[in-house]
Amino acid sequence: MIEKVIAYIDAQRETYVSRLNELLRIPSISTDPERRADTRRAGQWVHQLLLACGMKSEMLDTAGHPCIIADSGAGDGPAVLIYGHYDVQPTGDESLWHSPPFEPTVRNGSVFARGSADDKGQVLAHLLAAEAWMKVAGKLPTRVKFLIEGEEEIGSPNLERIVQSQGERLACGYVALSDTPKFNADIPAITYGTKGLIYKEIIVTGPKQNLHSGSYGGTLTNPGNAAAQIIARMHDADRRVTVPGFYDDVRELTAEEKAQMKRLPFDEQGYLSAMGAPALTGERGFTTLERRWARPTLDVNGIVGGFIGAGASTVIPAKMVVKVSMRLVPNQKHEKVSRAFDEYVRSLAPEGVTIELLNHSHCSAYVSPLGTPGMKAAEAAIEAGFGKKPFYIREGGTLPILPLFKSALGAESLMIGFCHPDCNAHGPNEFFGLSDFHCGIKTAAHFMHRMSQAA
Amino acid sequence: MIEKVIAYIDAQRETYVSRLNELLRIPSISTDPERRADTRRAGQWVHQLLLACGMKSEMLDTAGHPCIIADSGAGDGPAVLIYGHYDVQPTGDESLWHSPPFEPTVRNGSVFARGSADDKGQVLAHLLAAEAWMKVAGKLPTRVKFLIEGEEEIGSPNLERIVQSQGERLACGYVALSDTPKFNADIPAITYGTKGLIYKEIIVTGPKQNLHSGSYGGTLTNPGNAAAQIIARMHDADRRVTVPGFYDDVRELTAEEKAQMKRLPFDEQGYLSAMGAPALTGERGFTTLERRWARPTLDVNGIVGGFIGAGASTVIPAKMVVKVSMRLVPNQKHEKVSRAFDEYVRSLAPEGVTIELLNHSHCSAYVSPLGTPGMKAAEAAIEAGFGKKPFYIREGGTLPILPLFKSALGAESLMIGFCHPDCNAHGPNEFFGLSDFHCGIKTAAHFMHRMSQAA
Repeated sequence: MIEKVIAYIDAQRETYVSRLNELLRIPSISTDPERRADTRRAGQWVHQLLLACGMKSEMLDTAGHPCIIADSGAGDGPAVLIYGHYDVQPTGDESLWHSPPFEPTVRNGSVFARGSADDKGQVLAHLLAAEAWMKVAGKLPTRVKFLIEGEEEIGSPNLERIVQSQGERLACGYVALSDTPKFNADIPAITYGTKGLIYKEIIVTGPKQNLHSGSYGGTLTNPGNAAAQIIARMHDADRRVTVPGFYDDVRELTAEEKAQMKRLPFDEQGYLSAMGAPALTGERGFTTLERRWARPTLDVNGIVGGFIGAGASTVIPAKMVVKVSMRLVPNQKHEKVSRAFDEYVRSLAPEGVTIELLNHSHCSAYVSPLGTPGMKAAEAAIEAGFGKKPFYIREGGTLPILPLFKSALGAESLMIGFCHPDCNAHGPNEFFGLSDFHCGIKTAAHFMHRMSQAA
Repeated sequence: MIEKVIAYIDAQRETYVSRLNELLRIPSISTDPERRADTRRAGQWVHQLLLACGMKSEMLDTAGHPCIIADSGAGDGPAVLIYGHYDVQPTGDESLWHSPPFEPTVRNGSVFARGSADDKGQVLAHLLAAEAWMKVAGKLPTRVKFLIEGEEEIGSPNLERIVQSQGERLACGYVALSDTPKFNADIPAITYGTKGLIYKEIIVTGPKQNLHSGSYGGTLTNPGNAAAQIIARMHDADRRVTVPGFYDDVRELTAEEKAQMKRLPFDEQGYLSAMGAPALTGERGFTTLERRWARPTLDVNGIVGGFIGAGASTVIPAKMVVKVSMRLVPNQKHEKVSRAFDEYVRSLAPEGVTIELLNHSHCSAYVSPLGTPGMKAAEAAIEAGFGKKPFYIREGGTLPILPLFKSALGAESLMIGFCHPDCNAHGPNEFFGLSDFHCGIKTAAHFMHRMSQAA
């Protein structure tokens, strides 16, 4: 049967692109209140597609944008919950786009549009695979559920409540999602780990207002100098983070993982020149990929205070605001690290300033076990869909939904990446390769097939 | 004759306030292009007053606002050059003013208006004293010259050229100016030292654009963390500046100066609560006044880079801009300190960032010798005008004109303060006590008298 489904998909290649373009034309920018109706319209589009192919689909209203839950009903193998989102990032400066962000345009075999890769194109691959199975076989080979939200780009404020309250409807053996990239243009990837995050704001306050640095300098603690001291002491000479206990629970890479990372054809020079930084640097004793994927980090995200205009103004700043975030790796506990960070900052503050700490967000890291039946099915499906074995990679970014699925549903997630790693997901000229789209649909169809045999 | 002059001044008390108000009503904000005509009008007002009282006055046009040079002609004693300025600071947020900044309003014995203390009221005291002498005696007791500029609040961009080129016309035994405050509400002061200044901007650059801190964190040097490291290492645990050679040329306070500073009834608690900072801090081994007036300092004036909005954005900043200034004390050489600072910053920069350094301004410290005939004349004049001996104080701020007068004219400066130290010179609700104004005019009259005997 799978051969017939694949043949059907191959025959639809052109119409699939038209349908992708239809979805891409809806400017479903979830953060923009003026796009509220458009965002809903994109959700409706997804909901209609699911209904039309015979699934039981429901559109759940939330305080923000609606969430679609669908279910194919009984089937062989463990149920798979396919997660995705139909909302998109804002366009940013539209003058930087070579074609309008909501007028999908094909250039060099890729479609350029906001949301093409993140995540409309990738989620649509799964939806179209389900449709193909329904059309060709009259049913899905395994039980498939969909959870497609409209608030991913604004931090999924309503998703946790839905996942917690709809546990029975969402029950599954595995979660599958395509919201991560391939390893490079040629090689598809399964991402098996993401980092956690703690985002803090440190407000260092000295005098009640900016003061004349001549009249008052030398008699009080300058919040700018104090903030610098606090931040500077967060790393040692080996560029290790000095927050007490920071590394205590870190799950170290196994020898096998290290060996596997070393085998990846990672182009360090290309990576460096894409960043445009003077050098690759970081924690001593680890390779670039190890640091990027598997070592916890601490970064300043922004600093502001005092006189920040052009030229010179001789003030002592009343306060300095520092945004700092930490990326966590598996087994680090965000509550524990967060507490240690706060205590450490207070201990570093020199006499003469007061410290206020704000918590902006926190989330654990996630790592998916390798070699599970689901993972094997995903690998085989990618190999069938793309004609190439995927690489197993990790990701320095954070997907807060993954620890949520694990804790609420007890299910591990399979991150199957179809798009190019430099697809400009949040920047201008976002694109999705049409060949990746097509191979993605076939991969998704194979995945359903393989999962039916993975019981 | 001085008694008659003082009697005349006492009789003019009311009309002098009207004339002050007339000058204060002219919004001569030198930094505001829309106030260009008004600024000139204030200069014209001063020029007319000088002409009317019989002095040879000339209004010199510059690329910016005009400068007035006047001369009383021959007289006894060394010539005195009285320096001042007729331009004023911008008003800032006018809603913070209890009465409009250019509608002089008397409350509690003080006139509230922009420029009342800085510097219109204080310079007018000298002008009216000269006028009083002319009216009563037909001539000044000593040769008096005036140099009244209209660009002090924008850094006197044209003054150096004028002073350098008009050396003969400006030749004098002493410069006198009233652009510094009293010691406190009750005690007048002679300021005998000001600090120098070096103002730098450090631009720490890493990647070519802000990067996603998840995707790239741990693999490059974060310019925010790097900037913090650089700044943090500029002070040691004793809060001494660590720029190599920074203290080499510092003129230490003499035992007598230290003893004299200790005798001043400085209200530390009041000073601290005016600043609204948690504690008085600074270089170990020195008192608050010593640090404020006579120790060199290094302060962050502003920092900006990365994400500085509300909430959280997980970027690695492409660059971080830090404004840093140093206040210098007598004998420190700004060229030498500036060079040492630049080398030190570059040596502190970690691998993975590039450093750019901008110079915004530099100026030497100034200290006026104590016990000179001019200083004694100023002291006696203040005692006669205010009925109280002045305190000798120093100032943490910078007056770039003083080293200029010293180098170009070979003259020491006498800083005679009439206004309250908390007169809000650059803030809302600037004020000048009417009693201080009156005593200031009498002091200025006595000063001319004493100088005629100081030959």
